[in-house]
Amino acid sequence: MTKQSKSRPARPIWEDDNTGKIMIIDQRSLPHEMVITELATVDDVIFAIRDMMVRGAPLIGVTGAYGVHLAFAAHPGNQNSALREAGRIRAARPTAVNLAWAVDQAIETALAAPEGQRARAARQKAAEIAEQEAGNSRKIGKHGMELIREIANKKPGKPVNILTHCNAGWLACIEGGTATAPIYAAHENGIPVHVWVDETRPLNQGSRLTAWELGAANVAHTVITDNAGGHLMQHGMVDMVIVGTDRTTYTGDVANKIGTYLKALCARDNGIAFYVALPSSTFDWQIRDGVGEIPIETRDPDEIRYMPGFKKSPENLLMPENSAAANYAFDVTPARLVTGFITEKGVCRANEAAIKTLFS
Amino acid sequence: MTKQSKSRPARPIWEDDNTGKIMIIDQRSLPHEMVITELATVDDVIFAIRDMMVRGAPLIGVTGAYGVHLAFAAHPGNQNSALREAGRIRAARPTAVNLAWAVDQAIETALAAPEGQRARAARQKAAEIAEQEAGNSRKIGKHGMELIREIANKKPGKPVNILTHCNAGWLACIEGGTATAPIYAAHENGIPVHVWVDETRPLNQGSRLTAWELGAANVAHTVITDNAGGHLMQHGMVDMVIVGTDRTTYTGDVANKIGTYLKALCARDNGIAFYVALPSSTFDWQIRDGVGEIPIETRDPDEIRYMPGFKKSPENLLMPENSAAANYAFDVTPARLVTGFITEKGVCRANEAAIKTLFS
Repeated sequence: MTKQSKSRPARPIWEDDNTGKIMIIDQRSLPHEMVITELATVDDVIFAIRDMMVRGAPLIGVTGAYGVHLAFAAHPGNQNSALREAGRIRAARPTAVNLAWAVDQAIETALAAPEGQRARAARQKAAEIAEQEAGNSRKIGKHGMELIREIANKKPGKPVNILTHCNAGWLACIEGGTATAPIYAAHENGIPVHVWVDETRPLNQGSRLTAWELGAANVAHTVITDNAGGHLMQHGMVDMVIVGTDRTTYTGDVANKIGTYLKALCARDNGIAFYVALPSSTFDWQIRDGVGEIPIETRDPDEIRYMPGFKKSPENLLMPENSAAANYAFDVTPARLVTGFITEKGVCRANEAAIKTLFS
Repeated sequence: MTKQSKSRPARPIWEDDNTGKIMIIDQRSLPHEMVITELATVDDVIFAIRDMMVRGAPLIGVTGAYGVHLAFAAHPGNQNSALREAGRIRAARPTAVNLAWAVDQAIETALAAPEGQRARAARQKAAEIAEQEAGNSRKIGKHGMELIREIANKKPGKPVNILTHCNAGWLACIEGGTATAPIYAAHENGIPVHVWVDETRPLNQGSRLTAWELGAANVAHTVITDNAGGHLMQHGMVDMVIVGTDRTTYTGDVANKIGTYLKALCARDNGIAFYVALPSSTFDWQIRDGVGEIPIETRDPDEIRYMPGFKKSPENLLMPENSAAANYAFDVTPARLVTGFITEKGVCRANEAAIKTLFS
């Protein structure tokens, strides 16, 4: 079931109060239309994740966990089939570690339940992870707001200029977001903020989603091209950078939307703080070397060749018909360029010792 | 007069053999259509430069010089009016120093001629500057090719991967280009090259123009988003960067299309050579501090809000209707990040002493 909605749902994924169906915002249609659709099958879940109807590390984690529910519901009494389906969900996208983490959590919970109650157990786990992530965002907001307040205190009466890349807002999470949580908290607490929103090619999650979120919350913001951040930083127009992440190693290397590394480099070159906001579910406790080991998804080159949301017809081609395009979706910012992590447990430096101390 | 053409003109600006009219390629229509149009008046020239029918530092210089011809032709016997018109052309765009330089050259030449021959003198000067720039490109190609050859010799049988930003090809110059001249020379001399083409938002000069140029010349290339270069460099997929410039200070600071600075930073972070190709007409011999002093053009935010070449209608909006956008067109890469300059006189380091020695 897919329908247009005039109102704005409070979360990007939810269980319908009346029908119990699992519903999502189809984020491909934003900012111009609010389309609501049901995830009824495992294939629905995989398509929604792959085609980025849902995106953002915490959200695809929760979506994957609900997918495990659907897998067990579709194969009552056939655990192996359910697990095979869950494995397909787990592999739907490679970079965000939350997907595998949440799917594994849901599987583990399902298998611990008595036969006949496994689908329900997975569903409860998915709902529980969603609540956890919402709580994480609130705490990230609280901790990150203090960093914004420190800067605000040094420039009274002037807004704190924050640059962000991609969308790590409530659309990427459950409520509040990761990178945006401190921004929303500051705004709600009367700290003046202005956000530079990288448009984030090729899928324009910045100009389509982050700008839409910030506008709806009345947070002052300006959309810029992904090329512009360096110029702004050189001219004192950025006070801090806050981004989200799809996977961060326990050593502090940060996989995030392609282009994040470039912003970290120019923040460093201009002495500007570069923060990464994330819940503990986004840490990868296995991988040491982010640049060498985090799998980087490559996506359909047509995402570059045509504009996001436009029909793939010759008149919408952005480049010559016969030119090739390559679409790397993420890059890795080495820990040495990260000022700190804003997590639900507090703020820490980007190194193994600090991370392990915070999450011990 | 504006018409579609099936053939590809050899230059982006020329005097028609039969009519003597000044003709240009309207680059806004590329890569999908080849539109040829006449510059008949000073206002035509100013519009063509401002609206980027012609763009690229050497080309807007030559176009401006032809504009001086049109100014004197429109005001025979009224030198002050002609100079006032020429002044308007000189100020049509602020960042590329070639425009002011070439306009000044044409004015000086006109004023040195007897009354009644000034328009013709300016026209001859414009043609002369065009020939000079074509010659500069050939020499830049020759000098730059040797840098590519050095890398090729270290990886026999494999293509040299060159990243470029924006379009500094023959479309931006007269023939051969600046950044592309070494690439074309290498290709013609059997050195295998592959070019990573930054799409170059917001106006996509990379994906629209550079990709089209390279494709027409059968040079292997792949279009990428402006966000991707850092990832490629981290993974050994870029051997060198070559870009053009709109204005370079005598101290070596490089104004070029917004986003160039980000590529210079990641080249430095990964130990990759970052070259800037330019003719002597692009040096600014007055300005010492590029970041502080080079005027950076801000353009219409609608260039970001809508896709280049698409109608400005609600369905073509890339962002929420009510969100602001800011459109800075250039940034400045400090000399410390530049490996060297490729000029018509040879290659030199990016510092005042080296530049002044080469151009003494």
